[in-house]
Amino acid sequence: MGALGFVRGTARVSGKVYLVGAGPGAPDLLTIRAARLLGQADIVLHDALVHPDTLALACGAILVDVGKRSGGRSTDQRFICRRLLAAARRHDCVVRLKGGDPMLFGRAQEEIDALREAGVDFEIVPGVTAALAASAATQVPLTHRGLSRSVSFVTPRVGRTEGTSDWARTVAASDTSALYMAARDAVTTRDGLLAQGMDPSTPVLLVEHASLPDERHLAGQLSHLPDLVAQLGDGPAVLLVGEAMRVAMRSAPSPRARVSGT
Amino acid sequence: MGALGFVRGTARVSGKVYLVGAGPGAPDLLTIRAARLLGQADIVLHDALVHPDTLALACGAILVDVGKRSGGRSTDQRFICRRLLAAARRHDCVVRLKGGDPMLFGRAQEEIDALREAGVDFEIVPGVTAALAASAATQVPLTHRGLSRSVSFVTPRVGRTEGTSDWARTVAASDTSALYMAARDAVTTRDGLLAQGMDPSTPVLLVEHASLPDERHLAGQLSHLPDLVAQLGDGPAVLLVGEAMRVAMRSAPSPRARVSGT
Repeated sequence: MGALGFVRGTARVSGKVYLVGAGPGAPDLLTIRAARLLGQADIVLHDALVHPDTLALACGAILVDVGKRSGGRSTDQRFICRRLLAAARRHDCVVRLKGGDPMLFGRAQEEIDALREAGVDFEIVPGVTAALAASAATQVPLTHRGLSRSVSFVTPRVGRTEGTSDWARTVAASDTSALYMAARDAVTTRDGLLAQGMDPSTPVLLVEHASLPDERHLAGQLSHLPDLVAQLGDGPAVLLVGEAMRVAMRSAPSPRARVSGT
Repeated sequence: MGALGFVRGTARVSGKVYLVGAGPGAPDLLTIRAARLLGQADIVLHDALVHPDTLALACGAILVDVGKRSGGRSTDQRFICRRLLAAARRHDCVVRLKGGDPMLFGRAQEEIDALREAGVDFEIVPGVTAALAASAATQVPLTHRGLSRSVSFVTPRVGRTEGTSDWARTVAASDTSALYMAARDAVTTRDGLLAQGMDPSTPVLLVEHASLPDERHLAGQLSHLPDLVAQLGDGPAVLLVGEAMRVAMRSAPSPRARVSGT
């Protein structure tokens, strides 16, 4: 090692970075590997919505909130990449902790590119993604023998510098779909799906704060999506769509919506 | 409690059943909750491919292999349901341990229906699904800003009593797809996707034994899928398809395939 703590052009220029999935929310839905790495971490750069008990596992680490809050002020992705490289130069064990799974709507590619370009060694630790936690919590499987054999994970949310996407076409071509970050623009989401020819009576199931104590479920049909969303709080929500969700509607006390939660 | 250990028609007719995701394979990709429940379990009914170190966590439990091996002799699903109910009548804490996540290609619905009908209390614990472990292992994200914003999880495998499904249409309508149990019938899989108008040069990435020491990766293009599959062993494999997989091809030493592994 050089006097500055790193040597350019040799194998060891920096510490190791772990891109780690924090899971859906509940601290005990973290993987054992993620928990161990948090315990070893010198520094943790984490998303906004990671549970305090999860962060508490990083008992010897500097904690840095680089969270990008949907709709609110957010940390620029390039800034996060710079912070990550700076952390890797100074520390042996760097954990970049992302909500859910890092490879699904986690914008991992930008961070991977930055780490590769800088020659920083890294590893990725998968996590439980929100849709699977939502399915477990509502006891409604995403696949269902004879009814659903394809599940798509999409987001209707478009970044400022991105073009539109064919998310609605994907949903229309899938037996079941999990829509991430879809609750904010319920009218756009509903209209996008109806424009693809989806039946207005298609069952939908909204799950807010999946796996957490304030988790809430709302079941209804696609045409009523904006009314259902209006009953939600402002927590992160997953929208499940498809015939496999009909079992959630069956037990609904009213034809429009069933609310459950604490 | 009655003399037989349970009382019909009262709240406590049986123990509690946990449908638990064992994750993709590596024992430390189990969730903390799953590990805790295995430690408390009186009996564990598990799939065939669960890691011995994962089963070892169930130190006080009877272990029952009810595994259904793809293509081989398998335990009938109705038999598994009967075993599950019998276990719930005799034991306080029953864990039904399934590979990956229980709600995605886990045939959870049949077991949920059986438990509900019998009035058995149950809970579902989500897990890390194989495609997310495959993505983490290969360091190729499933979503990619500006390139992939929809990910489908499908299986071309059709049960004996099921009709055909539109899996290929779903894949063609998704930016990225993860195909489960697709390696056995590589020619059918490739031809099904080409018949949907997919480009023969679409990048594909095969990951066998994701997260385990004998994990192997093969990158290539859709038209060469059967050749790629022929290079695999007979372990469980996930097939990732889509433009987001092109980064895996870039580093391929030959235009047809890149093999990496131990």
